[in-house]
Amino acid sequence: MPSLLRAHADTIIEQSIHAVLPDEAVRRTLGAHSFTGRVFLVAAGKAAWQMAAAAVSCLPNIQKGVVVTKYGHVRGPISNCACYEGGHPVPDENSFRGTDAAVELVSGLNAGDTVLFLLSGGGSALFERPLIPAEELQDITRQLLACSADIVEINTIRKRLSAVKGGRFAQLCAPAHVFAIVLSDILGDPLDMIASGPACPDQTTCADARRVAEKYRLRLSERALACLAGETPKRLTNVETHVSGSVRELCAAAAKAAQALGYEPVILTDQLCCQAKEAGSFLASIVRSHVNPPRPMAFIAGGETVVQLTGKGLGGRNQELALAAAEGIAGIRGAAVFSVGSDGTDGPTDAAGGYVDGETRSRLAAQGIFIHDVLANNDAYHALRAVDGLITTGPTGTNVNDVAVALIGVH
Amino acid sequence: MPSLLRAHADTIIEQSIHAVLPDEAVRRTLGAHSFTGRVFLVAAGKAAWQMAAAAVSCLPNIQKGVVVTKYGHVRGPISNCACYEGGHPVPDENSFRGTDAAVELVSGLNAGDTVLFLLSGGGSALFERPLIPAEELQDITRQLLACSADIVEINTIRKRLSAVKGGRFAQLCAPAHVFAIVLSDILGDPLDMIASGPACPDQTTCADARRVAEKYRLRLSERALACLAGETPKRLTNVETHVSGSVRELCAAAAKAAQALGYEPVILTDQLCCQAKEAGSFLASIVRSHVNPPRPMAFIAGGETVVQLTGKGLGGRNQELALAAAEGIAGIRGAAVFSVGSDGTDGPTDAAGGYVDGETRSRLAAQGIFIHDVLANNDAYHALRAVDGLITTGPTGTNVNDVAVALIGVH
Repeated sequence: MPSLLRAHADTIIEQSIHAVLPDEAVRRTLGAHSFTGRVFLVAAGKAAWQMAAAAVSCLPNIQKGVVVTKYGHVRGPISNCACYEGGHPVPDENSFRGTDAAVELVSGLNAGDTVLFLLSGGGSALFERPLIPAEELQDITRQLLACSADIVEINTIRKRLSAVKGGRFAQLCAPAHVFAIVLSDILGDPLDMIASGPACPDQTTCADARRVAEKYRLRLSERALACLAGETPKRLTNVETHVSGSVRELCAAAAKAAQALGYEPVILTDQLCCQAKEAGSFLASIVRSHVNPPRPMAFIAGGETVVQLTGKGLGGRNQELALAAAEGIAGIRGAAVFSVGSDGTDGPTDAAGGYVDGETRSRLAAQGIFIHDVLANNDAYHALRAVDGLITTGPTGTNVNDVAVALIGVH
Repeated sequence: MPSLLRAHADTIIEQSIHAVLPDEAVRRTLGAHSFTGRVFLVAAGKAAWQMAAAAVSCLPNIQKGVVVTKYGHVRGPISNCACYEGGHPVPDENSFRGTDAAVELVSGLNAGDTVLFLLSGGGSALFERPLIPAEELQDITRQLLACSADIVEINTIRKRLSAVKGGRFAQLCAPAHVFAIVLSDILGDPLDMIASGPACPDQTTCADARRVAEKYRLRLSERALACLAGETPKRLTNVETHVSGSVRELCAAAAKAAQALGYEPVILTDQLCCQAKEAGSFLASIVRSHVNPPRPMAFIAGGETVVQLTGKGLGGRNQELALAAAEGIAGIRGAAVFSVGSDGTDGPTDAAGGYVDGETRSRLAAQGIFIHDVLANNDAYHALRAVDGLITTGPTGTNVNDVAVALIGVH
């Protein structure tokens, strides 16, 4: 029988992931808004189908829609919508076809119309209309990657080679209003980065683009060079953007679920990005300083940690974070730490994350398993499996980073 | 002119270190207590002289006292007290002479008497009366270190080879009452570890000691073997212990100082022990999630981080923590992170720690200094010096670990 703490962990995980499912995120946002005039739908990204289906169920009077998602991600017809599947992470002709259909849909609308624009991760590849031949676009991307340009530099160039990125899609929608719901898979929700910001003003300039091209001595055709000189919109007056289903909401939902179970929730951060095992140690330090609190507490840290590979074991960042925390909370009654990837997968494993409590270290030691050795071999998966510490959710249909939670004070 | 944030940092540092100075810690504890009957004083450790001097100024009617501290640490006579200086970290004849005097002082006391026992770091070497020849004690310690015995194992053996460790000094004081004030330099204040717990019941058993001796095949004389069979007290009814001047009080004082400056303080932990730069990243993540708070906030984490040496630069754990945080808070207005060692020294440098704010990264970049490279070379000292980011206090006279603080929301 699982412990009370483990049952609490499972409840918090289930409820927080549920809150950031694409359809939930769309429903929550649309529930707070109403639209006058005609509504057209454009959905792009890996979660486009779920987002569009949820939107249509909320707004049955959508005139017409275009959905562009990844191969295998269309689960059936959506009324009034044309669904396209295209290449990801490398865009292909079908990505372009779907995007063309979207551009056609939003052309010639009126000022009273609304484009409901549903954007999710993967949109960079799936929502694309290149201004240069696709082969050259791929070649330039390869050049940028080969010389280790950073993501900001890459996007500075790519936005200018696209008819829809860098705010240009919103320009194409004008004079119609764009109501954008963005499912964020990037920490800090940088709107200009998610799918390269089709409905987001672009802060980079042609001068920036020229500098990047010179810095890396990019080989560019005359046509590409001309594109780099084309400015992107710095200001968009017809766009209203709502970030929904982000790691921030994942954390907020974890806090709400913990509170319902009697914990006082503390959201430490939704932008965690340090080493997984050090984050586990930090969370365990917090637990050790809050033993026997007046009421049970739940410390929440969302984000995406990194794993330093030193061994050849099996694991993932969430499992590693949890296992490292087990060392720090060993022997403390009423303490648990767990961490889970909202997409239901953690590293190359079938687990979504890991759970540990004050007894985990001694239970491992009784089997001859020592945390320090396991972490040095990056083998958290097998250690956690030996003590029923794996969290398994299966694919969840969303991807808004991870959440780690430290519980203390339940007896 | 230093910024407002830097001025706040300096105030918080000054006030929090002041609160954990040995004399302050003794005064605070004694101020809340009164003693009937005769009071005898025994002080041992690196801060013994300051603690004793403070106690005598609070309690002028102390009958007699013995102070045992490190060479060069006696700063003058203390009325009614005999001051001894001895060897540290390796005990010598003078350590033993001082300890003998203390044992003599507390022998033959009455049930109405009190032994005011003032303990600080370094007491393990300075307060010692070995039950075997000093040379054999040193040889056994060397054997244990050579085979990588952990500190718990080492203490399990050493307590049994001593007439005063493992609670035995308190036994020698009986029937007098022992009022102990402990200045803690070990995270979590494990009383049996600080100076090997002369007034603390010992949880280790003779069976434990035998197991350690067998595990490492220690070479022991007949006399030493007989000592290992001698049990330490498991329960002491004549002892009252107050931990004062610990990292917990350092954090509490930082919180109080921050509050007086208008911040809402949050003590995350007083047991931080992860990698310095990862702790800096974690604190920066917390700052990024609390930009523009309703009122300014101060997140406080005390403890002692570790540095992973990958380069040959100059720095210390506090400087490295701060510099790593500079990357994470870059560009955020009203944000600062600083970290300082309470003893006033951080690594092999003349600085006590480091301070960074939202402008640090760009100020470094303007000088061609990049944080990632500096951290890889463990060279935080030179980078911080280039942007007035070093914190310099000089030796403070106390040593209760470090405190790191993240400020956000001051404009």
